[in-house]
Amino acid sequence: MPAPALPLYEKIAASIARHIDAGTMRPGDRVPSVRRASLQHGVSVSTVTQAYLALENRGLIHARPKSGFFVRPRVLDHIPAPKTSRPRKGLARIGSGDLRSRILEIASQRHIVPLGAAAPAPELLPVTRLNRVMASASRHARASALEYSHPAGCEELRRELARRSLDWGCNLEPEDFIVTSGTMEALFLSLRATTKPGDVVVVESPTYFGVLQAIENLGLRPLEVSMQATEGMDLEHLESVIRRHRVAAIVAVPSFSNPLGSCMPAKNRQALIDLLGRHEIPLIEDDVYGDLPFPPATRPRTVKSFDTKGLVLLCGSVSKTLAPGWRVGWVVPGERYYDRIQQLKTSSTVTTSKPPQLAVAEFFRDGGFDRHLRHMGHCYAAQVNRMAEAVSEFFPHEIRLSRPQGGFVLWVELPPGVDAVKLHTRALAHHISIAPGRLFSARPMQFANFIRLSCGIPWSPKIERAIAVLGRLVRQFTGAPSTGSSLPSR
Amino acid sequence: MPAPALPLYEKIAASIARHIDAGTMRPGDRVPSVRRASLQHGVSVSTVTQAYLALENRGLIHARPKSGFFVRPRVLDHIPAPKTSRPRKGLARIGSGDLRSRILEIASQRHIVPLGAAAPAPELLPVTRLNRVMASASRHARASALEYSHPAGCEELRRELARRSLDWGCNLEPEDFIVTSGTMEALFLSLRATTKPGDVVVVESPTYFGVLQAIENLGLRPLEVSMQATEGMDLEHLESVIRRHRVAAIVAVPSFSNPLGSCMPAKNRQALIDLLGRHEIPLIEDDVYGDLPFPPATRPRTVKSFDTKGLVLLCGSVSKTLAPGWRVGWVVPGERYYDRIQQLKTSSTVTTSKPPQLAVAEFFRDGGFDRHLRHMGHCYAAQVNRMAEAVSEFFPHEIRLSRPQGGFVLWVELPPGVDAVKLHTRALAHHISIAPGRLFSARPMQFANFIRLSCGIPWSPKIERAIAVLGRLVRQFTGAPSTGSSLPSR
Repeated sequence: MPAPALPLYEKIAASIARHIDAGTMRPGDRVPSVRRASLQHGVSVSTVTQAYLALENRGLIHARPKSGFFVRPRVLDHIPAPKTSRPRKGLARIGSGDLRSRILEIASQRHIVPLGAAAPAPELLPVTRLNRVMASASRHARASALEYSHPAGCEELRRELARRSLDWGCNLEPEDFIVTSGTMEALFLSLRATTKPGDVVVVESPTYFGVLQAIENLGLRPLEVSMQATEGMDLEHLESVIRRHRVAAIVAVPSFSNPLGSCMPAKNRQALIDLLGRHEIPLIEDDVYGDLPFPPATRPRTVKSFDTKGLVLLCGSVSKTLAPGWRVGWVVPGERYYDRIQQLKTSSTVTTSKPPQLAVAEFFRDGGFDRHLRHMGHCYAAQVNRMAEAVSEFFPHEIRLSRPQGGFVLWVELPPGVDAVKLHTRALAHHISIAPGRLFSARPMQFANFIRLSCGIPWSPKIERAIAVLGRLVRQFTGAPSTGSSLPSR
Repeated sequence: MPAPALPLYEKIAASIARHIDAGTMRPGDRVPSVRRASLQHGVSVSTVTQAYLALENRGLIHARPKSGFFVRPRVLDHIPAPKTSRPRKGLARIGSGDLRSRILEIASQRHIVPLGAAAPAPELLPVTRLNRVMASASRHARASALEYSHPAGCEELRRELARRSLDWGCNLEPEDFIVTSGTMEALFLSLRATTKPGDVVVVESPTYFGVLQAIENLGLRPLEVSMQATEGMDLEHLESVIRRHRVAAIVAVPSFSNPLGSCMPAKNRQALIDLLGRHEIPLIEDDVYGDLPFPPATRPRTVKSFDTKGLVLLCGSVSKTLAPGWRVGWVVPGERYYDRIQQLKTSSTVTTSKPPQLAVAEFFRDGGFDRHLRHMGHCYAAQVNRMAEAVSEFFPHEIRLSRPQGGFVLWVELPPGVDAVKLHTRALAHHISIAPGRLFSARPMQFANFIRLSCGIPWSPKIERAIAVLGRLVRQFTGAPSTGSSLPSR
């Protein structure tokens, strides 16, 4: 399944992006002139211009009037990353979940600048094409579109997923998949299949709050493991935790964790698999962001692809790339857990809704999904970069910023005194929603001075204004002198 | 929301059906001649003819050459109903569920005569119209069709459900509903919201096996209560059980229980609510068959409509009436359980798939759903009647048959010696699937000599042949002389 060929200008843009990424071209360096580059690459001037515009849109280069294009200073070069998290020892008890529910509800309101929920911007989704595929599939459908799908999900979709699994470093068969209602059902079923109430489950610290809520509702006990800002789960810490506790399962987001955006290096993935194998502990691998690396990086191999003992339950969906509201996800449970997951699914939602499955299958088959993903990756990289710039401009100097390598969220460590839950309340008065750090841990005060910002929506003056307001509110906590006071308060 | 007017011939058919039902016209009676009826009702001869044909199709009257139309003998008049079930005392342990899974898998295979699973026949579903509604909704959809619906489900659908709730004897608001992935998710969430592992849950005996499986998977303990063949749950037995055990919740199908087809009379519904109120026990009311009474009966009021203390969680869906595979259901949890159900839904499937919700809402809004339901009810009544006739013709005389008042399943008590699981295996060799009675209880031998037959599919010589084969197989167990031996074995 070769990826569709890149347009010429994209190839040139990618080659320059690689140089910037590798440090061959450094911030402030002048990029070859358009004329020179057209000779170097043997392409037309307009192709180079298109490439440079693309790089500018991605925030990698910028034009200086009458001087040409320059590599943009990287804002993250002068702001430190959050330190490796040090969760408190022992098991945590999860609170009531009220804060989580309230914040999620707020995040869905229309008049709010939505920096709280990690949802893809509708502007970046292939809306027209997807709706057309659904319409066409339904117009030609017969009675079978109304009937239950195969208990494991539509054959058509599972076949396309099997083909895509080559990109994940796997070589799966349609029979390996069980289609679910989004990644959340995949994670939920995986937790149910691997644990019983009272069991200990290892999670990342910080971790996605939906997982914490599922763990709470299933009567499980979460145990938090340190996260390094760029490499993800701290395997030494994980090993020491496994030695001290009877761990029933591990939940991790190795590719572009939420909220850090970290990506576990291949050697760590192998080490993790070895560790799992020695202790026979299942890993619930949440791969929901795996399709969204920042270009020019390629999609990371899943941990599942290193798995020889059938200990990994791989979970994914199209919720971050195509259609959150269609609720099409999947789990690859492996032989050990397949029957159990199938049975649990049957006795909770029976099967996944059929028309969205058929439409997603058709969209995959049709091609163009990989091009769509590349486009999204470029947009998200640029949006995260712009957000980081704005934060560094308007927030106090003592902050730390995550180094996302994919996805579309930014994790901000504020000065120690700032209470992010209070910040959230004050921001709401300005119609801005953010996700306070406390959501991302079962220990109430673990990330009290952190916030997660979603960069899912295209940059706009409205968002810039919102960041300026947030900066001002943060300064009110710290007593630092305010900047950007000339900006309106909403 | 007045129901759409009946066509004239339907009105006449309904009036005659009422006479038959009330016993004013009895089996063997001659129905007024077409000419006379046309004068009586003041309608054309062709309208009366159409009415008589409809009654004939429903199995209520039959033509004798040169003599006219006669009220058909009711097959159930000479076969007794199963006795009130007497489940063994105490709590039951549920088995592995393997039998259930295996039988469900078999039931979905195409080459099988599907008397095993209770699914509506595709021929009776409004396939073309539904698919067209979905196509049109998608063609005109914007980005919002891809986004998450409101956490409780699409406003459009909840509004239509609120209007329909008047037919259920309720007067619900859109805010009272949480949309789910079919009735099964509604039941599953309701069980999770009202119990914790180890709790005792009362179920009907016999009961729908999907509920038993959910109870098993949630670590709950089922307690079975007697069922009367026509009136449903035996309230005296229920009360004595409640006095002896701490019951966390009750699951019941008051309208057209599965597999009995029984319907709890209004006075029992009131008595049940009084009992629940005295003991503060929640009732999970599964109303999935409530829309399918046998004409001329009208839709029963839900138990929820008697509820003043907020103890009933009402669960329903369009899975038996429109589209099983779309997975659109709902729960009305009441104030006590609303927040808990919403939170449990968020941490398992987040929201229900949006396009099917929008399409069902549009189908409801469009009108015609009630006409469709009436048509289905007529078909199912006739199909159940034909099935009962065939069973009485081909099975040994010692059998007992349920008296379904709605839905589309028939519950058959075979002579004591017959092992229905073995019967199921032998039937499969003839490409016929049935549901053995043991599925319908947590106690392995409770209904060992019962089977459930689905009458969801239109009558055909193929089905008649299948019933003849089943009768022959049953006789092989009992040693009774075989009839119908001239029929082929497949």
